[in-house]
Amino acid sequence: MHINQQQREGFYEVLFGRRDVRREFLPDAIPDEVLQRILLAAHHAPSVGFMQPWDFIVVKDVHTRRAIKQGFEQANDESAAMFDGERKEAYQQLKLEGIEEAPLGICITCDRQRTGNVVLGKTIKPEMDLYSAVCAAQNLWLSARAENIGVGWVSILHDQVLREALKIPANLEIIGYFCLGYVKAFQQTPDLERYGWQSRRDPKQAIHYEQWGNQQAD
Amino acid sequence: MHINQQQREGFYEVLFGRRDVRREFLPDAIPDEVLQRILLAAHHAPSVGFMQPWDFIVVKDVHTRRAIKQGFEQANDESAAMFDGERKEAYQQLKLEGIEEAPLGICITCDRQRTGNVVLGKTIKPEMDLYSAVCAAQNLWLSARAENIGVGWVSILHDQVLREALKIPANLEIIGYFCLGYVKAFQQTPDLERYGWQSRRDPKQAIHYEQWGNQQAD
Repeated sequence: MHINQQQREGFYEVLFGRRDVRREFLPDAIPDEVLQRILLAAHHAPSVGFMQPWDFIVVKDVHTRRAIKQGFEQANDESAAMFDGERKEAYQQLKLEGIEEAPLGICITCDRQRTGNVVLGKTIKPEMDLYSAVCAAQNLWLSARAENIGVGWVSILHDQVLREALKIPANLEIIGYFCLGYVKAFQQTPDLERYGWQSRRDPKQAIHYEQWGNQQAD
Repeated sequence: MHINQQQREGFYEVLFGRRDVRREFLPDAIPDEVLQRILLAAHHAPSVGFMQPWDFIVVKDVHTRRAIKQGFEQANDESAAMFDGERKEAYQQLKLEGIEEAPLGICITCDRQRTGNVVLGKTIKPEMDLYSAVCAAQNLWLSARAENIGVGWVSILHDQVLREALKIPANLEIIGYFCLGYVKAFQQTPDLERYGWQSRRDPKQAIHYEQWGNQQAD
């Protein structure tokens, strides 16, 4: 199927309009048909050996989300202590999650044994299954944006908190916990850039030609 | 910015139309403006602490691609030996890369030290920087599809082959090597499903509600 100019423009609006949302969540429920579209899109991520190692745990219960929030607060205090001086103060000013404000959370896991011990494409790089599950996360994030739903990836959280709150078996890896909800607005600029934490790298610096370090196109 | 129905449909056409391409590459060159759009989209992936740890090495040189292809062949022989009987025969029938047919390769790396030793969001889950670089890979893959360009992720390759061929410094992690090119056609069905290697999992089996193992929505 040929993608035309109009479809491509729609795609890029979604891609460049995606943000990591923490403070703009609205409490409005996400209709089940919208949630199912987002999860189906995540399920259509690429995966090594077509092993589709991901699972999605959908969390709406307020008590569960409160327990996860408490886990975040503890992990965030530990994290703040790793920064010094002004940087520590700046860190503590940032809002880094919307676990209780967003009406819905999704935990993505990875089953590294799915389809057996020897998996096509994972024979040389064993981390490929984890990377497949991350591709599902990025599909989920972009699809949510296409549905005008904000997503925030909460990584300041010990796996054990999610494992206990969501009864995740010990043999599964935890990729991440994502907050989803409609938003007051999508910001134009990432929060960490807007608040002066870190600036965007010049894309030219990220591109090399033929060999590492050669940044002039021929 | 509100995404409307038409933009959303364009987005989903790209997402569900994406394939891992190995055998359909055409030799036609990718115009530089198209390549730059794809790389800019990859550079706009989410990243932990906004560290943007990725770099992109663009490879067109035929000698370099031949060296990488030789590395693949060696790794693929090692890999075939890990399968038994019929599965091994089936493995050897599959075409798993298009390194020489596709006119362009991109290697994605991850600089785990970028922005320093203590990175916001990576304090508890140190693998988050690698996952950010994988999000860039998925952005690249989808954006290429939006430009009607096929992508194949070659993971059957020892890092050392890419490190030597592309002069990648020892302190960088290698995420993957991607073949890019226009295609005869995009398949509707993933190759590994089409050739009976692995079937698609029922998406319902991947979705759990409130706790792991509960597969009935309330």
